[in-house]
Amino acid sequence: MKIAVLGTGMVGKAVSGRLAELGHHVTVGTRDPDATRARDGEWPTPVATYADAAAGAELVVNATNGQATLEVLGLAGAANLADKVLVDISNPLDFSQGMPPTLSVKDTDSLGEQVQRAFPDAHVVKTLNTLNADLMVHPESLGRPSSVFVSGDDAEAKAVVSRLLAELGHEDVIDLGGIETARGAEMYLPLWLRLMGSLGTPRFNLHVVR
Amino acid sequence: MKIAVLGTGMVGKAVSGRLAELGHHVTVGTRDPDATRARDGEWPTPVATYADAAAGAELVVNATNGQATLEVLGLAGAANLADKVLVDISNPLDFSQGMPPTLSVKDTDSLGEQVQRAFPDAHVVKTLNTLNADLMVHPESLGRPSSVFVSGDDAEAKAVVSRLLAELGHEDVIDLGGIETARGAEMYLPLWLRLMGSLGTPRFNLHVVR
Repeated sequence: MKIAVLGTGMVGKAVSGRLAELGHHVTVGTRDPDATRARDGEWPTPVATYADAAAGAELVVNATNGQATLEVLGLAGAANLADKVLVDISNPLDFSQGMPPTLSVKDTDSLGEQVQRAFPDAHVVKTLNTLNADLMVHPESLGRPSSVFVSGDDAEAKAVVSRLLAELGHEDVIDLGGIETARGAEMYLPLWLRLMGSLGTPRFNLHVVR
Repeated sequence: MKIAVLGTGMVGKAVSGRLAELGHHVTVGTRDPDATRARDGEWPTPVATYADAAAGAELVVNATNGQATLEVLGLAGAANLADKVLVDISNPLDFSQGMPPTLSVKDTDSLGEQVQRAFPDAHVVKTLNTLNADLMVHPESLGRPSSVFVSGDDAEAKAVVSRLLAELGHEDVIDLGGIETARGAEMYLPLWLRLMGSLGTPRFNLHVVR
């Protein structure tokens, strides 16, 4: 599958690298490809502008930080996102008031919904925002099954994303419902942050036992 | 142990009944004991006013709904809560805007912290608010271990509560840290609500796989 991964941070690196290993044609989108190469050296996958990466893809992954998400997707361009699956991994974490971060949108709205409203022709699926970058792409490394969530208004888009999640090794994909349910997945982050503090590691994930 | 369980809803019934079965001396606290008996018939445990129940107890459980919590604890009386472990099970759910409920306090504060600030001489421990009433007292019924959280500023109080949780069958008690971490446990509720909608049952719980 032709996939654009927008973002060159830890999440972008992990997701683009693993999807390429799995045989997908991945292009990484960044603000300034030359600056990214100057900083990181050559990437294992092609690097392009947000717009060029999105234009050539069938599916786009938003792996940018939540405070930059709407601006970056604007640079990618609504036309380049239209009628495509847009996988939103971001979290609306606000570090401006110190640690632990708070959420810049919550409870009566979510970043997933903001993205869907800003790009109504994209099929937004919120997922993977509930675990750390390495576990997103290597959930089997925990040694036991754990759960991931999908939220989105388009059933076909969620089916496409659920297949990708299965390729990544996720054995328990829970469909929470429409994109409104991204509120739940995003509001788990404050608990994730306290668990990381308590356990002393980001290497954990929820399993929904039922 | 002499325990007061404040609240006669589903949580109060489940927790008071199970703690009594386990051999504790439980008194249920309610606004008007005669009205409670008139509504429910005789309870399996003694029923008293909030203040009388709290006065005779070594440990007090707040099993009231979150919107009533501060008022009820005020009726129980600061002097009757002083120097005692106060187990806070409540959630700040606000149903006034329809379903799903939102949280009336979140992210930069929590109901657990509000309780601790209002009753500074009590040793508040937030726990059990992340699962349904039956699973609070019968976690083994899920057939596999799952996790519960404790948040509180007093290490000894958390140790007392963790022993009670073990008596109830909880095999994985995670100490999140100080009472500030109740923000995390309370902000999980929006995800819990979407999971209940998606799974079609409240009979599930998180296991933190690590």
